Amino acid sequence: MKKVNSYRIAMIGAGNVGTHLAKALEYAGHKVTDVYSRDLKNAKELTKGFYNATPTDSLDFSKSQADVFIIAVKDDAIPFIVKKIVLPEGVLVVHTSGAVSIDALSSLPVAIGVLYPVQTFSRNSKLDMTQVPFCIEGQDEEVVDVLTSVASALSTHIHIVNSEQRKALHLAAVFACNFSNHLIKIAKDIVVTEGMDFQILKPLIAETVNKALLVSPEQGQTGPAIRKDMTTIKAHLHFLKGNPELSAIYEHITQSIIDTYE
Amino acid sequence: MKKVNSYRIAMIGAGNVGTHLAKALEYAGHKVTDVYSRDLKNAKELTKGFYNATPTDSLDFSKSQADVFIIAVKDDAIPFIVKKIVLPEGVLVVHTSGAVSIDALSSLPVAIGVLYPVQTFSRNSKLDMTQVPFCIEGQDEEVVDVLTSVASALSTHIHIVNSEQRKALHLAAVFACNFSNHLIKIAKDIVVTEGMDFQILKPLIAETVNKALLVSPEQGQTGPAIRKDMTTIKAHLHFLKGNPELSAIYEHITQSIIDTYE
Repeated sequence: MKKVNSYRIAMIGAGNVGTHLAKALEYAGHKVTDVYSRDLKNAKELTKGFYNATPTDSLDFSKSQADVFIIAVKDDAIPFIVKKIVLPEGVLVVHTSGAVSIDALSSLPVAIGVLYPVQTFSRNSKLDMTQVPFCIEGQDEEVVDVLTSVASALSTHIHIVNSEQRKALHLAAVFACNFSNHLIKIAKDIVVTEGMDFQILKPLIAETVNKALLVSPEQGQTGPAIRKDMTTIKAHLHFLKGNPELSAIYEHITQSIIDTYE
Repeated sequence: MKKVNSYRIAMIGAGNVGTHLAKALEYAGHKVTDVYSRDLKNAKELTKGFYNATPTDSLDFSKSQADVFIIAVKDDAIPFIVKKIVLPEGVLVVHTSGAVSIDALSSLPVAIGVLYPVQTFSRNSKLDMTQVPFCIEGQDEEVVDVLTSVASALSTHIHIVNSEQRKALHLAAVFACNFSNHLIKIAKDIVVTEGMDFQILKPLIAETVNKALLVSPEQGQTGPAIRKDMTTIKAHLHFLKGNPELSAIYEHITQSIIDTYE
């Protein structure tokens, strides 16, 4: 496939990622030609915004004009798509997953790659796509070039990473985002259970994360663990004594902080 | 002590909390009359900004004009201050700690209370004090009234909480802030070890916390744990297999997410 400025795109999936990506690609000068969803209604809904796109619930794309097929479905639906999809010759197929290897596409008789946006998308919230980091992987230099061209129209933050790196990045995101979010949920439950308002904690959480991102998490580390304040740590574990799950989380993270800064 | 609009304040401690509080109190119309630090240089430095404040490294305040003494020192230095301080009659003494009970002050022959700002302060970064939640505790209604009057000049977010609630709040802050910050550090280490830039993760972290605070952490929970995606969870644990500490953190938080949303 030649590197050009504008590609014809088939979006396989009309969920949060597919919707945000398709809209951003069309806005950036690419042409969305096909939108697939298991539910034709969702595909039709998304194609409304585009100049000339065909909605479909069929995976037979033998007559599609698209150059690049973007599989933006849940990780565990990728094998189904790969098994069923019928493609024109000479196209490029990518998935958008952080956790799935490029090899998941290797049975396809076309060029393959990965276009992973490192961001969380909500259907109804706008997002500045130019600030979203895109991680690119391709089976060869040519695919990397094409994907760089596709993604550069969307974002100023393009990173070329291999499947091993992408796996590490996804794991890191689980710690920094999924797990942090759950710790915020735990904190909310503790204050609400004691008859207080979750609002009390919000400015402190916002400022803490702000510091971690603008300065560094190392410089921002405070609390009883880094001070090795065993009196406070014991008091906290006493407070948690009816809850072995929270106690275990508390003990392991506390120990990790102590070991990190020793 | 009568409730008035302007109090004379002695600040015991010239660290981050003491510095921010003293400046905000003077700015809000109270008068800082004394600044204590173990290191007279620090006390002198802070008093420079005030109209008529005396720097000191002595804890004999028998001749002080202050109405309210604010102990803003590290938690484990509070007992030393309480033991050594010499006070005029009829004053109010408070500490600013989230983790220390009001009882730590009960040997003092004056009125006692707590004025706990739920925020993290850095010496050189400005902060909008009007958005900082202040948690107030007093030995009686009169003290609560005085502290409400003192704090209302600083902030629009005043909460009256008892020592048990404050302890819970402090524990919640450890989960939501100290621990989240450490998870961000773990994530940074993972991506840097694999030759990537921590920058890749920052927009995702910022958006995740933004959603947790503006919508709710429950609505914002994503990732393999809430999907019970055992394939990804096993792959992540395999990646972490050389690191029992991170594996334990991963397993316990994953289990807690599964249990929370089941």
